[in-house]
Amino acid sequence: MDYTKKMLRDDALRGKNIVVTGGGSGLGKAMTKYFLELGAQVAITSRNLEKLQHTTKELEDETGGKCFAIQCDVRHYNQVENMRDEAIAKMGSVDILLNNAAGNFISPTERLSANAFDTIIDIVLKGSKNCTLAFGKHWIDQKETNKTVLNIVTTYAWTGSAYVVPSATAKAGVLAMTRSLAVEWAKYGIRFNAIAPGPFPTKGAWDRLLPGDLKEKFDLAKKVPLKRVGEHQELANLAAYLVSDFASYMNGEVITIDGGEWLKGAGQFNLLEEIPEEMWDQLEQMIKNKGKK
Amino acid sequence: MDYTKKMLRDDALRGKNIVVTGGGSGLGKAMTKYFLELGAQVAITSRNLEKLQHTTKELEDETGGKCFAIQCDVRHYNQVENMRDEAIAKMGSVDILLNNAAGNFISPTERLSANAFDTIIDIVLKGSKNCTLAFGKHWIDQKETNKTVLNIVTTYAWTGSAYVVPSATAKAGVLAMTRSLAVEWAKYGIRFNAIAPGPFPTKGAWDRLLPGDLKEKFDLAKKVPLKRVGEHQELANLAAYLVSDFASYMNGEVITIDGGEWLKGAGQFNLLEEIPEEMWDQLEQMIKNKGKK
Amino acid sequence: MDYTKKMLRDDALRGKNIVVTGGGSGLGKAMTKYFLELGAQVAITSRNLEKLQHTTKELEDETGGKCFAIQCDVRHYNQVENMRDEAIAKMGSVDILLNNAAGNFISPTERLSANAFDTIIDIVLKGSKNCTLAFGKHWIDQKETNKTVLNIVTTYAWTGSAYVVPSATAKAGVLAMTRSLAVEWAKYGIRFNAIAPGPFPTKGAWDRLLPGDLKEKFDLAKKVPLKRVGEHQELANLAAYLVSDFASYMNGEVITIDGGEWLKGAGQFNLLEEIPEEMWDQLEQMIKNKGKK
Amino acid sequence: MDYTKKMLRDDALRGKNIVVTGGGSGLGKAMTKYFLELGAQVAITSRNLEKLQHTTKELEDETGGKCFAIQCDVRHYNQVENMRDEAIAKMGSVDILLNNAAGNFISPTERLSANAFDTIIDIVLKGSKNCTLAFGKHWIDQKETNKTVLNIVTTYAWTGSAYVVPSATAKAGVLAMTRSLAVEWAKYGIRFNAIAPGPFPTKGAWDRLLPGDLKEKFDLAKKVPLKRVGEHQELANLAAYLVSDFASYMNGEVITIDGGEWLKGAGQFNLLEEIPEEMWDQLEQMIKNKGKK
Repeated sequence: MDYTKKMLRDDALRGKNIVVTGGGSGLGKAMTKYFLELGAQVAITSRNLEKLQHTTKELEDETGGKCFAIQCDVRHYNQVENMRDEAIAKMGSVDILLNNAAGNFISPTERLSANAFDTIIDIVLKGSKNCTLAFGKHWIDQKETNKTVLNIVTTYAWTGSAYVVPSATAKAGVLAMTRSLAVEWAKYGIRFNAIAPGPFPTKGAWDRLLPGDLKEKFDLAKKVPLKRVGEHQELANLAAYLVSDFASYMNGEVITIDGGEWLKGAGQFNLLEEIPEEMWDQLEQMIKNKGKK
Repeated sequence: MDYTKKMLRDDALRGKNIVVTGGGSGLGKAMTKYFLELGAQVAITSRNLEKLQHTTKELEDETGGKCFAIQCDVRHYNQVENMRDEAIAKMGSVDILLNNAAGNFISPTERLSANAFDTIIDIVLKGSKNCTLAFGKHWIDQKETNKTVLNIVTTYAWTGSAYVVPSATAKAGVLAMTRSLAVEWAKYGIRFNAIAPGPFPTKGAWDRLLPGDLKEKFDLAKKVPLKRVGEHQELANLAAYLVSDFASYMNGEVITIDGGEWLKGAGQFNLLEEIPEEMWDQLEQMIKNKGKK
Repeated sequence: MDYTKKMLRDDALRGKNIVVTGGGSGLGKAMTKYFLELGAQVAITSRNLEKLQHTTKELEDETGGKCFAIQCDVRHYNQVENMRDEAIAKMGSVDILLNNAAGNFISPTERLSANAFDTIIDIVLKGSKNCTLAFGKHWIDQKETNKTVLNIVTTYAWTGSAYVVPSATAKAGVLAMTRSLAVEWAKYGIRFNAIAPGPFPTKGAWDRLLPGDLKEKFDLAKKVPLKRVGEHQELANLAAYLVSDFASYMNGEVITIDGGEWLKGAGQFNLLEEIPEEMWDQLEQMIKNKGKK
Repeated sequence: MDYTKKMLRDDALRGKNIVVTGGGSGLGKAMTKYFLELGAQVAITSRNLEKLQHTTKELEDETGGKCFAIQCDVRHYNQVENMRDEAIAKMGSVDILLNNAAGNFISPTERLSANAFDTIIDIVLKGSKNCTLAFGKHWIDQKETNKTVLNIVTTYAWTGSAYVVPSATAKAGVLAMTRSLAVEWAKYGIRFNAIAPGPFPTKGAWDRLLPGDLKEKFDLAKKVPLKRVGEHQELANLAAYLVSDFASYMNGEVITIDGGEWLKGAGQFNLLEEIPEEMWDQLEQMIKNKGKK
């Protein structure tokens, strides 16, 4: 099957102005591209202006849309305010904020310095909070409505995960912020949702996350019931839906798109998958008339 | 804003054959209509053949699609097998099963007879299980792949709810079945997902659920942060997405579309919404320099 | 360490009359024994009266407590009412209901008949519902208060699990009932809670669940972060706490006692545990200065 | 009923050395007192040394136990390391860490400065992380085992909550850390669990949280199915159990003790509680024979 087909009607995001943090590469770039194809204007941000400018040019060439590069370290609230003002100056207004910027690395937790741990909290949790606060205050102050914030989290935001503990704590915080403000700021016409993607490999972040031959050694596709990783367009379809007006009644929700990965690990007897078909024939006889007490 | 806009590209479900249980009225009918508009063939089932036939005619007239009426009480496995065979005979094959048939009524639990409680378990949980088993066995036996099952549950599948306890237990069972088979049957090319809708009033089920003047007395829109109930098309957009190939990487997921209703009730301090703006001005002074210990 | 130490103060359950369904063997028997040691009277039920009578004699001899055997197939409401009346006749009243009776067997779901699936739903979900309804109606009718119901569920009540799908759906239903009635019947002075035990092997149920050499092949201790299965007394300590007045403010809660088993499977990067210490040294160098985007 | 009874056997914590952050007042003090009564030595920490010293004296007088006061601002890792070293110097070793220090205040989120938001993240999330890291590194480095960490979170760690959003994000982070390290550090003999308390009013934190007449206006007892707030001893019983060896198989779990508060808000039809008994009589007639479709 072709997993790269595009779902939404043409022009589904026509007239929408979007900010995508961490939009210069990886999944942020993939989502940005689809937003542009659907008629939105998009401002992408990251700390690396050169990379951003390269991406905006590439995406404008490919899609014919309008894409802007704005340098911003989301850890610093004043930079975030400047980014917001620049985005508004360039696009006229902002309707949609996609908190996608993140940092992560694998490590046994006892090997982490307190500082290294803090850095991830600052980028992921405080960064998402800074952007949410800066845009939210503006929208509320200006009485602008029909706004939405989409946060990228992860399944270990609720299960936790070893070896990526700073990211787990920070993403959990972002999820709680999503649910809290979905309730609190609904009265101002601002919706909040989140996506928890499973394995969607990217050249950048994914290679850094599992360096060397770890990618082969720990083939995440094997942990997915569907036995494959995700295609970027599959994530982009979901993201475009959630930020569009078609999802107007979706609020406070986190949607997992992972092929069933986390459930496969979680369920107590899922490991019985290893039993071959022939053995089930034998077991069936043994088990019959025994299952009740 | 117009919440009745249609999201998916034309022909998004062209070539798909769908069975919708409880498709004769209410939300089942609304989803069926959109599936037909997107090019699918749909067989709708319920116990009342006359109502079904009326609906199929109405929907075919409105959409120009092909819709079939099949009588079936989902509580009885042999009826479900017959329904499945008839659906296959009429449409050639079935690609998508939407377990939507349900029963529910409000009552203090101590007023329920054991039998009344069982009836809801039988319709909702055993009914969904019967349909899932009948179609699943067929698909697996025939080695047909790229199939999907969508189950309609509710937010109280995980929170529980007073006064609808039989429905809560049964829907929770359906959700667990969704997550279990999403893992187990992925190897056969069958995906499972669920939707948990908030308040989407319908003339039929909703009026029966809150009879008399209860609908006014307990205005469910007030419990929703967005201060409105859902439009049927908003649910239909989500359902069409989930059963389409665009959601191929979504597996084992339950998606809530309730405007944030359940979260608003759940969060401990959400009730502070009642504090007027002026009082926050005063509080701000009192609270300052006090928030830490 | 000695995991068989007993937690509660002597006489912590003095004056309490308890019904334990499925109390003739396994975990039900272990909990019953500790309840007796803590001063409670306990009536145990199952379909097999002879086994029950053997157990009551054994437990009375060991503990010096009062234990009663009552035959009951929890699938049949009239038998449950008779059981309740007999328990009251023998003990004077009943304060605590422990829904522990269950049935389970492993099987690929497509190999199950609709009937086999129903049998588990009937024992587990309808059985727990029958007992809850029979005792609840009595307590409410007689205006007796300070009652509590404890339900034994499982971690796959919320995660789902392949190969035990009937049990997963039924236990999920029991969990939803727990949470629903915790809210609804609190006004009558009845608390509800649940325990989700991880692997606590028993000679009976566990051997039936994983027959032949499966127990060795799929060593569940390996899936537990603590690398061991649970001791029955550890479960008994928790159960005694929850049914005692010391847990009076605990209501609607499900407590997992599994050594972290389900979380270990669920967290996305928990599999990195296989990386040896030396490799982390190398990785540390590679990862440094790369973790941010 | 008397909710202040003490659950555990005398000497249940004899030989245990415990650090309680934020132990100078409120719930931290209540738990500390019970730990002392059960034979533990306890070091309590906060920023206010004078208050701590007052508390240690009071608790030693009341319990005859050994209690130490150590000044520490948990936001600063070097202070946390010093605190740890001082605790070890005073007690010989530390077996149990109770992360209880927190900060919280109510405010509409749009009124918060980025800095005010950060302060709560720093105290709650970074503070808990700092203590966990400092003790964990030490235990792992020294190969000390049979250690445990208990974190105090809240039900809005997973539901989110308006008006306390900084606390919600930070507590969610602490919960994810609990679950992550329960898996990762189990191999070092360190268990992690959390408690999510509902309304347990204290003279200090609670008064600051709901200042002026808000405490009366928003009577949190009304939101609890059991219609009362919790007694400190009820929380202390649970905490003592979780840090004791009796809970050795409990790992990665968060236990809610809130009388069912969050569930009461969350369940969709719980509001029907307002229907008086007479009206149910009428409804019963209307609803009969209508509940199925």
